[in-house]
Amino acid sequence: MSIPATVVTPPLVDELDIVIPTIRNLDFLEQWRPFFQPYHLIIVQDGDPSKTIRVPEGFDYELYNRNDINRILGPKSSCISFKDSACRCFGFLVSKKKYIFTIDDDCFVAKDPTGQEINALAQHIHNLLTPATPFFFNTLYDPYREGADFVRGYPFSLREGAPTAISHGLWLNIPDYDAPTQLVKPRERNTRYVDAVLTIPKETLFPMCGMNLGFHRELIGPAMYFGLMGDGQPIGRYDDMWAGWCAKVICDHLGLGVKTGLPYIWHSKASNPFVNFKKEYKGIYWQEDIIPFFQNVTLPKECTTPQKCYIELSKLVKEKLGPIDPYFEKLGDAMVTWIDAWNELNPSTDGAATAKAEPSKPK
Amino acid sequence: MSIPATVVTPPLVDELDIVIPTIRNLDFLEQWRPFFQPYHLIIVQDGDPSKTIRVPEGFDYELYNRNDINRILGPKSSCISFKDSACRCFGFLVSKKKYIFTIDDDCFVAKDPTGQEINALAQHIHNLLTPATPFFFNTLYDPYREGADFVRGYPFSLREGAPTAISHGLWLNIPDYDAPTQLVKPRERNTRYVDAVLTIPKETLFPMCGMNLGFHRELIGPAMYFGLMGDGQPIGRYDDMWAGWCAKVICDHLGLGVKTGLPYIWHSKASNPFVNFKKEYKGIYWQEDIIPFFQNVTLPKECTTPQKCYIELSKLVKEKLGPIDPYFEKLGDAMVTWIDAWNELNPSTDGAATAKAEPSKPK
Repeated sequence: MSIPATVVTPPLVDELDIVIPTIRNLDFLEQWRPFFQPYHLIIVQDGDPSKTIRVPEGFDYELYNRNDINRILGPKSSCISFKDSACRCFGFLVSKKKYIFTIDDDCFVAKDPTGQEINALAQHIHNLLTPATPFFFNTLYDPYREGADFVRGYPFSLREGAPTAISHGLWLNIPDYDAPTQLVKPRERNTRYVDAVLTIPKETLFPMCGMNLGFHRELIGPAMYFGLMGDGQPIGRYDDMWAGWCAKVICDHLGLGVKTGLPYIWHSKASNPFVNFKKEYKGIYWQEDIIPFFQNVTLPKECTTPQKCYIELSKLVKEKLGPIDPYFEKLGDAMVTWIDAWNELNPSTDGAATAKAEPSKPK
Repeated sequence: MSIPATVVTPPLVDELDIVIPTIRNLDFLEQWRPFFQPYHLIIVQDGDPSKTIRVPEGFDYELYNRNDINRILGPKSSCISFKDSACRCFGFLVSKKKYIFTIDDDCFVAKDPTGQEINALAQHIHNLLTPATPFFFNTLYDPYREGADFVRGYPFSLREGAPTAISHGLWLNIPDYDAPTQLVKPRERNTRYVDAVLTIPKETLFPMCGMNLGFHRELIGPAMYFGLMGDGQPIGRYDDMWAGWCAKVICDHLGLGVKTGLPYIWHSKASNPFVNFKKEYKGIYWQEDIIPFFQNVTLPKECTTPQKCYIELSKLVKEKLGPIDPYFEKLGDAMVTWIDAWNELNPSTDGAATAKAEPSKPK
């Protein structure tokens, strides 16, 4: 008798949603098919809701356009940005899964130095399922990786690590530069494959890019709000930065870890630096005040959930950043609306009232 | 007329000393000849001073044995460890150069993934001569490296960076594990070449290994004291760790940067885990209290030089760690003696009294 072939089930296939914000046909999924097809996709269609987005055959997905967002959230839909990839966080809100992977539609499969195609999703899952080390730096990088460990001098009491809340992946080819750097170095490409995953230490902020990002939705989802950007707002291209600053501060407070490094995706095209310059203009000034603000945020110990932390942070944003520009008053309000929407769509197990999201294209 | 050939002078050849602690003939230098020969070596002979250490022909060096140390420092020689590689810091003390590179005699030239021999010293010099980024994490690692830059969202006001005080290099082959890990994973080898240099963020401690280490002697030299280890002491193998904790806290206070990553050296042989276990035994317990101590150290703003910081730290060590074990009282005193010795051998430009170190084998 022959031994039956082992069926390999993709990891977390029932516990992870892939969220993709887009304005175009999703032909880029063809390249990702071997890696993404077993998973469920949540597509957030930005811009004109009357346009039809083509999704390649065989993918399991739900798609939300602006009309869906307005219908599902009602007046609370004001917290979801329009004409900006910040709209992706609507996907985080309506997901019912434990983990999220989000990717931009101009990101393709990268190759490692041996020429092997990189399964970015599998690496994110690995990063999320192994602990992080935010309290002390390990010089051989991720100590939980095959062939590595904690080095001499690493305190034994810290070797259990902390739960990983965020896995931040990187980009080969077009690096994630701001408009001034794009303008100064139009031809720079990232060709360096750094074979490492590392934990960003506690109390260190980082620029989180939303292009290639995994996170634990139950642990940190409520802090993954991408802010008010794009249409009708004075700023763009700071959506993921905002989420990163808020989420990092909350991870630090809750004792959760944030990793960066592998996996790489292939970022195919640079956005227009002149358009970006306009979007970033105010952000470039504001970040000089925003970052010291986040570096000094202290959350009270009563804040034991990401929701509570986020509400507290919204108050501090209004109080400390409000004086910079009325935009931050509005943003602080939107942060509260976001949490209201989160709690409505994600009732806690104690059975609070709930609404149910219905996509326009359930599969 | 022909154009004269360009003579390439090795970088910092008159401004850097290579410090090597040893108990054996320095045959390992043969492999390093192409990279080290232009530089001056300071050899600190540990153990029996009557033994002759053979140094390969053609190297420019001075050598100090225990008799030299006792003669030069007199009663202050009590701060220099015996029968432990911690004695290397005597070389830092007697150097008159701006930069130090220190390496163990079981470390050889490693190869990068293309098979090219790595000039570890050149990489350390590069690390030390370019700024560090301790205040905010750059996800593409060293932004000053060719082909890299600051990513979107990195505050522009922080892009000048901070002066780099320490460059911590890594090891291929035998990883720097503690005795318990050596015992558990006797066959583990480090084969992963991570092509990155990164700054360890402000307020994050790391386990500094003295095997392959460069530093800016003027900026941080006085904090590079390797403590009381080995002969007559209750502890060993924590010399570099101690220096690393002290130096990092002082770098953070003085606004200096610490880098880790490239260059790799080839670490040829694992030390005996059973011997190491005995040496590390108390350290493994003590570090559980020492690390929280260093994580909470605050130096007063009057401490504007590494010497002042170090004296202040010595007081805190006696006060806060003294209750753990009388060893820390003794260590606190030795820290003061070290600074006395430093100031004696390295008079400030205001012309304080000085003694002059005379090696037993000037070349």
